[in-house]
Amino acid sequence: MNKKYSKKAITKRSEDYSQWYLDVIAAADLAENSPVRGCMTIKPKGYAIWEKMQNYLDAQFKLTGVENAYFPLFIPKSFLVKEEEHVEGFAPEVAEVTHVGGKRLEESLVVRPTSETIIYETFSQWIQSYRDLPLLINQWSNVVRWEKRTRLFLRTTEFLWQEGHTVHATQEEADKRARQMLNVYKKFAEDILAIPVISGQKSESEKFAGALHTYTIEAMMQDGKALQLGTSHNLGQNFAKAFGVQFLDQDEKYKFGWQTSWGITTRTIGALIMTHGDDNGLIVPPKIAPIHVVIIPIINESNRDEILQVARKLKTALADADISTHLDESTDRPGSKFFTWERRGIPIRIEIGPRDIEKQSVTIVRRDNNEKCVYEMKGVENNIEKLLGDIQDSLFQRALAYQNKKTQVVNSWEEFTQAIDNNCFALAHWDGTKETEEKIKKLTKATIRCIPFSQEPENDGTCVYTKKPSVQRVLFARAY
Amino acid sequence: MNKKYSKKAITKRSEDYSQWYLDVIAAADLAENSPVRGCMTIKPKGYAIWEKMQNYLDAQFKLTGVENAYFPLFIPKSFLVKEEEHVEGFAPEVAEVTHVGGKRLEESLVVRPTSETIIYETFSQWIQSYRDLPLLINQWSNVVRWEKRTRLFLRTTEFLWQEGHTVHATQEEADKRARQMLNVYKKFAEDILAIPVISGQKSESEKFAGALHTYTIEAMMQDGKALQLGTSHNLGQNFAKAFGVQFLDQDEKYKFGWQTSWGITTRTIGALIMTHGDDNGLIVPPKIAPIHVVIIPIINESNRDEILQVARKLKTALADADISTHLDESTDRPGSKFFTWERRGIPIRIEIGPRDIEKQSVTIVRRDNNEKCVYEMKGVENNIEKLLGDIQDSLFQRALAYQNKKTQVVNSWEEFTQAIDNNCFALAHWDGTKETEEKIKKLTKATIRCIPFSQEPENDGTCVYTKKPSVQRVLFARAY
Repeated sequence: MNKKYSKKAITKRSEDYSQWYLDVIAAADLAENSPVRGCMTIKPKGYAIWEKMQNYLDAQFKLTGVENAYFPLFIPKSFLVKEEEHVEGFAPEVAEVTHVGGKRLEESLVVRPTSETIIYETFSQWIQSYRDLPLLINQWSNVVRWEKRTRLFLRTTEFLWQEGHTVHATQEEADKRARQMLNVYKKFAEDILAIPVISGQKSESEKFAGALHTYTIEAMMQDGKALQLGTSHNLGQNFAKAFGVQFLDQDEKYKFGWQTSWGITTRTIGALIMTHGDDNGLIVPPKIAPIHVVIIPIINESNRDEILQVARKLKTALADADISTHLDESTDRPGSKFFTWERRGIPIRIEIGPRDIEKQSVTIVRRDNNEKCVYEMKGVENNIEKLLGDIQDSLFQRALAYQNKKTQVVNSWEEFTQAIDNNCFALAHWDGTKETEEKIKKLTKATIRCIPFSQEPENDGTCVYTKKPSVQRVLFARAY
Repeated sequence: MNKKYSKKAITKRSEDYSQWYLDVIAAADLAENSPVRGCMTIKPKGYAIWEKMQNYLDAQFKLTGVENAYFPLFIPKSFLVKEEEHVEGFAPEVAEVTHVGGKRLEESLVVRPTSETIIYETFSQWIQSYRDLPLLINQWSNVVRWEKRTRLFLRTTEFLWQEGHTVHATQEEADKRARQMLNVYKKFAEDILAIPVISGQKSESEKFAGALHTYTIEAMMQDGKALQLGTSHNLGQNFAKAFGVQFLDQDEKYKFGWQTSWGITTRTIGALIMTHGDDNGLIVPPKIAPIHVVIIPIINESNRDEILQVARKLKTALADADISTHLDESTDRPGSKFFTWERRGIPIRIEIGPRDIEKQSVTIVRRDNNEKCVYEMKGVENNIEKLLGDIQDSLFQRALAYQNKKTQVVNSWEEFTQAIDNNCFALAHWDGTKETEEKIKKLTKATIRCIPFSQEPENDGTCVYTKKPSVQRVLFARAY
């Protein structure tokens, strides 16, 4: 038996959403727990999705003038300490290298949990004058944060990500860049992953350790929980002052740089699974799918050669139209193949049997809604292309409708707790204090996901918990 | 002053080759020592070359059926110990994580120096039957080996690489795969990097810790030293037995898998510099150059707009022909721009001044031989494309001629030591023993780079050192 392809039934979402999530990852063969505590092995089918994500984002970053570079995995412990809030945020999670070849190091090295400190120490050498600005750098890398409870993709001790780091001459320019990169993430989430997101600013308690402001995009999973998909930080001059990132400005004065950092991680794959998957397995939106179409020949011994010949010709025609296609020539029964590829979330299945050949047609099944239709074989690539667009759109619309349905504007504590207990997002007035935020979290496990950028215009209100005055609604939810 | 772009003069190769190498890296802005001992920072211009290398190799691997995956950075110390030769080879170099968040771990984790152990532990779970074979996996990642003496790109504590890992049902198939991947590397070196290489098998002393056979490609640097560019290992069943990588074969018997691993690293960038660079700086072969052409407008205040307009149009025309082009619009003097871009090794420089516009022509300078010519503006992209091909070829031919000239067939100890002292490769008979290999190394610092696959047919000979019988010549050289 081939253990690689789990045949295990997938738990229904309504029965146990957490188990469903893990079952889908196994059924679609995306990742597994590694023998190293808290670390995952990303299997080829999961990694292929990450590669598609990287390719899209990398091109978008470059279009905005960002260049890639690579900085060391290790950070001297003394660096981490330089920015006070930053070290407080990360110290409990860092892994320390103390020995090499069995001998003790003079100074421990920390395995990067994020690279602000090592990169900004370097930037302080690179930057001398205003002519060196803006400095726009990105790094694709692995990072390590020791997590107590881990969960494939969503929270692992080691994960993969990109981290962008920029330096600007003015606060305005830095803030503009931080928001620009958040928009790149939003476009990525909505246009490519078909995941609708709410963008906004983090509260003081939820912002990145060391940032002035953190901007975020938040998505709703099918269990109503929020998932933070990407963040972009306006770092102000906090790190610039700690690491001496200074430049001689046009007015001949030395000034500290204004900085941003922004990142998106392999947890995005978790969001993809939990936004679109169903009780039959994974559903991958066409624009991020490594394989768009799987062709399954319906063959018996007598017609095998004839049907495979047609199937291979079709595969070539689709490839020529830039439609990534897999032809399943294995000897498994068609039903077993349907089952396998459905679980893996391939957007379109094409069946070719004797009757299709007779009629010069193909039978097509959409993964997103299971609809079946028959197309003429000739020029089928045009119809497939259109269908892929339809699937992409309808996945987004379905997720958006769900998010809208489950996002409630609440005006009292009762409404608030009801919304949270019903696994909804709650848009509520809040008095703006850390104390209230903490109390609400303690009572309901809901946190402020963001202060949304776009709000329905309305009058000021009163905090759902303290009834103190509030100038805007914020988004509360339980979160991953 | 902008420290990013070093204006420091480059030491001549004839004066101090090692310093020349470091000066070129600084002049071309490729990398620098990081604040972490032995680790480098790969700067954007260096990383862009690595990205081109990755893109080419990744596509080639995939064409042979290899899929990418990702395995943990950390390896439990107990895994490393399972294959005896392997742990002996790597133990002195490994970095150990002993603490997390200030608390001691029960079992230390090693930062991967290479991933055979963690990957094969996992493969033992993935593989059950002959139908799971061959398993063809690659990983792009960072690895850490604590080096006493480090040198940018060539030997750094952390470096970037890819490591391929495959499992096969038979020894023959594994050996074929190991050789196939070496050929991918050879084609990459010769066709893309324009670096001629000698391929062959490593001696027992020089092979990978734990391998049955190691295959290698070796290149000659301009100082006559050898540089190992890539290796591919036939691992036999050594690791399969240590990690229980077993499969049920068609004959219903359990058998151990036959394995290979193969890798190429960021040291390849060092080889590129040392093969092609000259006293004026870096020279990048067109097929690996992130930028093919730099356009330098020769402007003064009165003609600025007119000339820039023509230059921008030319840039677009070149881009449309898939020629990657940078237009230097900065306000520096043309001479300063020539200097900067020459040091960075851009294959072609185009100058556009008032006279060029008048004559509807452009002035072109090749980086490889400094030849100047004038082309008609119209359709210049076709000539540039041809010129890029010429440059690629002539860089390879130049390097090949150098390697041939400095590779000597030697038949006596005197000839041998003379060749080595003259910084040549020596093709010499060797008695096949480890003892002789060691003695020769002690006396001359030359090591056996490989037992070349292709040899001139000749009679058996006698070892240059012991005069004992020998059946073939091997390649000796001092090496990086």
